[in-house]
Amino acid sequence: MRVGIDMGGMSVKFGLVDGENRILDKLVIPTRLDVPPEKMIQDMVDAVRQLLERKNLTAADCEGIGIGSPGTIDDEQGIILYSNNFYWERVPIVEQMKGALSLPVVIANDADAAALGEVCAGAAKGVKSAVLLTLGTGVGGGVILNGRIFHGPLKGGMELGHMVIKAGGEPCTCGRRGCLEAYASATALLRIARREARSHPESLMNSMCGDNPDNMNGVIPFEAAVKGDKTAIGVIEEYEENLAEGIANVINMFRPEMIILGGGVAAQKENLTGPLAEKVKPLCFGGEHGEIPPIVTSCLGNDAGIIGAAALLLQK
Amino acid sequence: MRVGIDMGGMSVKFGLVDGENRILDKLVIPTRLDVPPEKMIQDMVDAVRQLLERKNLTAADCEGIGIGSPGTIDDEQGIILYSNNFYWERVPIVEQMKGALSLPVVIANDADAAALGEVCAGAAKGVKSAVLLTLGTGVGGGVILNGRIFHGPLKGGMELGHMVIKAGGEPCTCGRRGCLEAYASATALLRIARREARSHPESLMNSMCGDNPDNMNGVIPFEAAVKGDKTAIGVIEEYEENLAEGIANVINMFRPEMIILGGGVAAQKENLTGPLAEKVKPLCFGGEHGEIPPIVTSCLGNDAGIIGAAALLLQK
Repeated sequence: MRVGIDMGGMSVKFGLVDGENRILDKLVIPTRLDVPPEKMIQDMVDAVRQLLERKNLTAADCEGIGIGSPGTIDDEQGIILYSNNFYWERVPIVEQMKGALSLPVVIANDADAAALGEVCAGAAKGVKSAVLLTLGTGVGGGVILNGRIFHGPLKGGMELGHMVIKAGGEPCTCGRRGCLEAYASATALLRIARREARSHPESLMNSMCGDNPDNMNGVIPFEAAVKGDKTAIGVIEEYEENLAEGIANVINMFRPEMIILGGGVAAQKENLTGPLAEKVKPLCFGGEHGEIPPIVTSCLGNDAGIIGAAALLLQK
Repeated sequence: MRVGIDMGGMSVKFGLVDGENRILDKLVIPTRLDVPPEKMIQDMVDAVRQLLERKNLTAADCEGIGIGSPGTIDDEQGIILYSNNFYWERVPIVEQMKGALSLPVVIANDADAAALGEVCAGAAKGVKSAVLLTLGTGVGGGVILNGRIFHGPLKGGMELGHMVIKAGGEPCTCGRRGCLEAYASATALLRIARREARSHPESLMNSMCGDNPDNMNGVIPFEAAVKGDKTAIGVIEEYEENLAEGIANVINMFRPEMIILGGGVAAQKENLTGPLAEKVKPLCFGGEHGEIPPIVTSCLGNDAGIIGAAALLLQK
């Protein structure tokens, strides 16, 4: 039995995970940004105890605790170096939790943990090497090679969303211009859809958002496109073309066995991946001489983070 | 003692390499494109024998042979899957050389071998993880992680030059538009320099190439820039800005301990890397929270390929 923790800016999710990567019990607590990190970590310690007690388990029944956290993580030292979701800097979370619970505790970046979850028990189960791209508020990503999380030796690497695909292009939250995140996040999809809805008053997308593009969501352009709305079809085309450039870059560099898409936009499933695969193919280096991996959507949803965090213990 | 072979479109270079990664003797034969692969490989077998005999060595004195070849390589099967330098397709070179010489034979992509050479005995000696970008006719690259060549599990990966940095931009030799190669190769530098020389007749670059931009070479823009020629300064700026985008992408993904630049343009040494490092810094994700590796130029020159090829035997 292991405990997986998925830390987020709104809530922290805890799961009791068995040897088959199944979640037996879950618990969620709110993320408190108004207290010092030590206090928040104490809340997390209490939640782990509660989760174990609910199943009449003691620390002895638990192999350890794995944590997925947003931000730049020093996994060797067990420190959250920087997280702009929590406004935390250099927080030695592993040491504090270990001290309180007397259990092994390990940590990784949350996108890395989610990627590991998908490889252990999700869309890429049975596959050794896969890349996860999460298309949400931003674009996150995790690379699993030979069943292990991959990141470079220096801190701060493996930021797939901050690979430039159009140098000098759209401004990105990271300060650079033209990052994949600025074109392939759900936020970017909304930006494109709002722009096009405003300049095409006849588009179905307008009525679908109550004639106020500020109410646009990530589903409307896809639904309007299915109904044949030309403006919406153009929005999806533009979005997918840029996403395809990013995916082809990932393939040209890592040639993983599988590309997994997660996050809100991936809810479109084959509606997204079908046309996308056709756009990716001609962009991959070597054409017929190279192997092109399948593009699938994640299937664990929010549980990927918990299962992956718990699976971190198996990597050590 | 090991033999390292660096295969090129014009010539094949052989080196006798000792345990300290020093080249004791070298031999070069022309690449024959007019004969079947088996014939060319027989020439290579003869050259290996000659190299050993010249030092009064027998096969028993040799640990084995490492080959660096351009193109898409199946290193596990020992096959050159495709090389547009030789017009070879699915050539089982390792099997043939093993059969003829009764020695262990291993193969890798030539850029990968050069990167390994720089890590074993060159600019990145003592470093475990480094990325080599060669700025020549094209942009090649090799990634060394923990002292080993890195490439993804499927064939055809790790093509750093074919990472798009400006989607839809300049056409690339691979068929895609906007690849790093189309902006950061020596070929791209010449394209930019010719364009600017033509539209600025007053530029020093014109007199330096005999008033015929067709005679432009990769040194002229750098020399003219040092002399204060504004047009040349602009050429170098444009070239370095795009190269910086590619290097920042590599850093945001791999966070290696060192970036090594090789190929013709890297002959500019600090003249290139100094301004480049300043351009790369603000593009790296995480700013002060991430570690930014040094950018250096390769120091083995053409020997990197031979030394790296010989070092392949140590990876097995």
